[in-house]
Amino acid sequence: MSSDNSTGLVELAKRRGFFLQTAGAYGGVSGFYTFGPEGAALKRNIEDSWRDRFAIREGNMEVDAPTVLPEPVFEASGHLDGFDDMLVECPECGESHRADHIVEDRTDIEEAESIPVTEVEELVAEYELVCPTCGAGLAGQAIEDFNLMFETNIGPGSSASGYLRPETAQGIFIEFPQLAEYARNQLPFGVTQIGRAYRNEISPRKSLLRVREFTQAELELFIDPEEDEPALESVADVTAPFYPASDQTADDGEAREMRIQTVVDEGIVGKPWIAYYLGIAKQWYDTIGVDMDRFRFRQHRSGERAHYATDCWDAEAEVDGDWIELGGFAYRSDYDLSKHDAYSDEEFTVFRQYDDPVTVEQPTVDPDMSYLGPAFGDDAGAVAGAIENLAARNPGAFEGENVSVAVDDDSYTVPVEKTGFSVEEVTESGKHVTPHVVEPSLGIDRALYTALDHCYRDDEVDGETRSYLALPQTVAPTTVGVFPLMDRDGMGEYARDLATELREAGLSVTYDDSGAIGRRYRRQDEVGTPFCVTVDYATLGEARADADEAAGPDTVTIRERDSTAQTRVAVEDLAETLTALRDGRATFDDV
Amino acid sequence: MSSDNSTGLVELAKRRGFFLQTAGAYGGVSGFYTFGPEGAALKRNIEDSWRDRFAIREGNMEVDAPTVLPEPVFEASGHLDGFDDMLVECPECGESHRADHIVEDRTDIEEAESIPVTEVEELVAEYELVCPTCGAGLAGQAIEDFNLMFETNIGPGSSASGYLRPETAQGIFIEFPQLAEYARNQLPFGVTQIGRAYRNEISPRKSLLRVREFTQAELELFIDPEEDEPALESVADVTAPFYPASDQTADDGEAREMRIQTVVDEGIVGKPWIAYYLGIAKQWYDTIGVDMDRFRFRQHRSGERAHYATDCWDAEAEVDGDWIELGGFAYRSDYDLSKHDAYSDEEFTVFRQYDDPVTVEQPTVDPDMSYLGPAFGDDAGAVAGAIENLAARNPGAFEGENVSVAVDDDSYTVPVEKTGFSVEEVTESGKHVTPHVVEPSLGIDRALYTALDHCYRDDEVDGETRSYLALPQTVAPTTVGVFPLMDRDGMGEYARDLATELREAGLSVTYDDSGAIGRRYRRQDEVGTPFCVTVDYATLGEARADADEAAGPDTVTIRERDSTAQTRVAVEDLAETLTALRDGRATFDDV
Repeated sequence: MSSDNSTGLVELAKRRGFFLQTAGAYGGVSGFYTFGPEGAALKRNIEDSWRDRFAIREGNMEVDAPTVLPEPVFEASGHLDGFDDMLVECPECGESHRADHIVEDRTDIEEAESIPVTEVEELVAEYELVCPTCGAGLAGQAIEDFNLMFETNIGPGSSASGYLRPETAQGIFIEFPQLAEYARNQLPFGVTQIGRAYRNEISPRKSLLRVREFTQAELELFIDPEEDEPALESVADVTAPFYPASDQTADDGEAREMRIQTVVDEGIVGKPWIAYYLGIAKQWYDTIGVDMDRFRFRQHRSGERAHYATDCWDAEAEVDGDWIELGGFAYRSDYDLSKHDAYSDEEFTVFRQYDDPVTVEQPTVDPDMSYLGPAFGDDAGAVAGAIENLAARNPGAFEGENVSVAVDDDSYTVPVEKTGFSVEEVTESGKHVTPHVVEPSLGIDRALYTALDHCYRDDEVDGETRSYLALPQTVAPTTVGVFPLMDRDGMGEYARDLATELREAGLSVTYDDSGAIGRRYRRQDEVGTPFCVTVDYATLGEARADADEAAGPDTVTIRERDSTAQTRVAVEDLAETLTALRDGRATFDDV
Repeated sequence: MSSDNSTGLVELAKRRGFFLQTAGAYGGVSGFYTFGPEGAALKRNIEDSWRDRFAIREGNMEVDAPTVLPEPVFEASGHLDGFDDMLVECPECGESHRADHIVEDRTDIEEAESIPVTEVEELVAEYELVCPTCGAGLAGQAIEDFNLMFETNIGPGSSASGYLRPETAQGIFIEFPQLAEYARNQLPFGVTQIGRAYRNEISPRKSLLRVREFTQAELELFIDPEEDEPALESVADVTAPFYPASDQTADDGEAREMRIQTVVDEGIVGKPWIAYYLGIAKQWYDTIGVDMDRFRFRQHRSGERAHYATDCWDAEAEVDGDWIELGGFAYRSDYDLSKHDAYSDEEFTVFRQYDDPVTVEQPTVDPDMSYLGPAFGDDAGAVAGAIENLAARNPGAFEGENVSVAVDDDSYTVPVEKTGFSVEEVTESGKHVTPHVVEPSLGIDRALYTALDHCYRDDEVDGETRSYLALPQTVAPTTVGVFPLMDRDGMGEYARDLATELREAGLSVTYDDSGAIGRRYRRQDEVGTPFCVTVDYATLGEARADADEAAGPDTVTIRERDSTAQTRVAVEDLAETLTALRDGRATFDDV
């Protein structure tokens, strides 16, 4: 799509109720968008579809945590220190900009985000880069790390800092001890969450693609890294374009279409769990209307990997000529749970029972204090402690006649017979394991924007240009528009009753009797309604003939959005026909 | 329910995955709760049920706005000034408390929130009230207004303040000009939103009932106050206990069961639109499990009404012996739209077309500056403006020979012939109307907590005490538990396939094969699963006999939660039977 179409999309989005910049009456506020009636419905359908695929069908649990979390959570997670962007302030106009973006926009350098701050300062000077707002030179301006979390205070006073969560994940991690109980302490288990997340962007841009408040759909899968493997066979034959890090630096590198099984076998995707979710995600993006000819999986290069991730892939789509990130798939190892284990009061492990109990040798000591006391005086207690540590660390040291231990830089030698050293056999039934985390994290707003962009079409109908959204029927805001040909002679009442009946059958229905029928079709085309049903004089004639036993059933016209083809269907079968069409159990040709 | 049962409920809520205090591993954070798998599902079902009743069935539009909004919005809405609680800080221990709560807890005074701050300071001194934490005297301590909005900064620097929304409503009001376009500028139209809202409570308490982050489901209905009336007949016969303000101050006042039609006819509820939504809300609370014997509508007394509301009723439920607010129903008049119209750059009105154009007389002036200039010098322009204002305000003043106008306390007399006064006939096709707002605003967390409390039951089954949640099947987190009698002889496979099949039919299903069958029933009873299905040896026998033409269909046991009654059902009918039970189209006796 050209950038002209992007402008058209943003205009259509506002005019038809998909999304608009928030608080336009107050001049708007950068990076915040409000979803109108069509957009809110589309967003909900996309979320429900994600829930169905990533939570329900995978047997994962869904939780719902607060968006505000206290400071200690983000001390542990690393966000207080590491969640920064490079901020440069213009000395002339005072406007703030992302220094890495200026470098990328005005030079051939890519991924400037991963370049250290001091080097970016040098690049700004070297290329004589200027303020994008007023044109003043930025050389010599200090570049600062700006933390992207929104900060607030919890309760009166300023003592308790809280932050709007930058991802939904931490709300899951911090409740791991309780969540593991719900999973009866059996690995693997997955926990999902769909909800708002926040990034206090320095310069929001590109409509819904870089915003300050957005919706994430995240799955945190907790696995035993030594034992758990994904059911790869279910997605082994799924293919997708893969763009590994090595190809990105090659001169002729480009994404290659490969099977999930292949990328695992050839080690292109290092972690089978990541490959498994890439397969599922590919299928899912396809169902919500992302064009698979403008889609790929791109591996993070070493410089851009997040601090916690050992292998990381992005799902990307081409929008307005740029490749944008739709979601990330990270193998987070035990980073998160280890951190929260260390920073909090609880244990973030599960107990893994051995198939058979294991007998291990466990060294113990029982220092003879009646010897240590007179021998070492005030230091005797510390020496006893050091002996105990040594036994746990290096039991071999007790094989000679004496052992030496250090206390505060002084060395003490003790006869082994005075340490009470012995080795006991202990039976262990299992061990504590810190699970590893596999995380597919998908942005709902970006998926929605991409689906709209990829489904936005023009064609010609009856000699007129028509714009329509070819949204899949599973996510379209409205499944069926119901119209009377005109609101007269009883057609309006008939159509309104029909709309109510279809709604009660669980369909999403719009009733419209305003304006010419062609204009009503166009209106539904523009919001992506896949089917329209029209009550006309033939319907009424059939209804009037119902007293006559030989009369056939009432029929209405049903019209398909993309082909504009029309056919007549019996009203008594309509709800089932439309439900089958929506759920993909039938195509329009079957009707 | 006694407070013992409340403790039992909070314990069950944590153990079984309904909700738990957030960040327990970090000592917890007051006023924030995380919904576990059962609670998140229950919450979603309650939200969906609200959406169905208040949005879809009423034909209203649903939108989805940001939770962070810029400061000018809350300047206009009045929240920056008026959204305060009374804060008193203990001089000894430094703890912050709500002064009105201390007064209410330690004296017979009720609704201290509506007493002016200076009087509350006097009451604290008079009753010698003390710090609830350390017991130090609070007399003489200043009581301060503490704004309950969470504040943050949008973007770098501290120039742009933003606030976490205290209600979802403002996100709707500020987009009114665009929303009216979506409604084709036809009143009445309604806009709903379900989402997070925030109150930085001084002392959160009572579990989910007074929290800092919560979910609101709000409907803003925009009406023409002169023309639009609700379809009252659809709820006219709904009855509910009403507790008007006048009865609350009477000695023997108590809520009286009355019909919606009656409270309108007798003027007990002043606004028919409010009465209409009270009727709908009564029906809705009933369907989600709130006990109608512990439910009432209470009118706000004049002191407690919000600044914007001219008539206000609360839906209340009795929980742990206290009446708590579940939702509010306010007639907000044109307060919100007028404020945003005045504070912003756009018009918050709709144009109401007259049935027939109206001819009105419009006075105009055309002051003769060649007379005013010499006569009034520097003040001539101001005098001309004052003449124009006078003509619009009081055209009768131009009937004499001279008119007098005031400019900066000086009076100027001008001959009428020099004012160019005349009256023209103008044809107007309609006028601009600022719609009034009717607002049902319901708290989802409180509804959820009340439903859990009211549905929490104990009985005796097979000589053992059983706890269960008698949640209505429409909102229960899981509709059906599927068990094999034991996971052996093929019963496990059969039951797992059956669970998958039921899930594909759109049911919420749990599979469980762990532990004795009685224990699995109890586990589902505790989370409110209305039906359990068990695959047993009889099922397998029937399945094996399928090759035999005379064999009957496979059957399974289906058990109802509340009665613990069991019956056998054909597997081929199971999905349809369970769907009918869930949707209320059948009862267990029909099965």
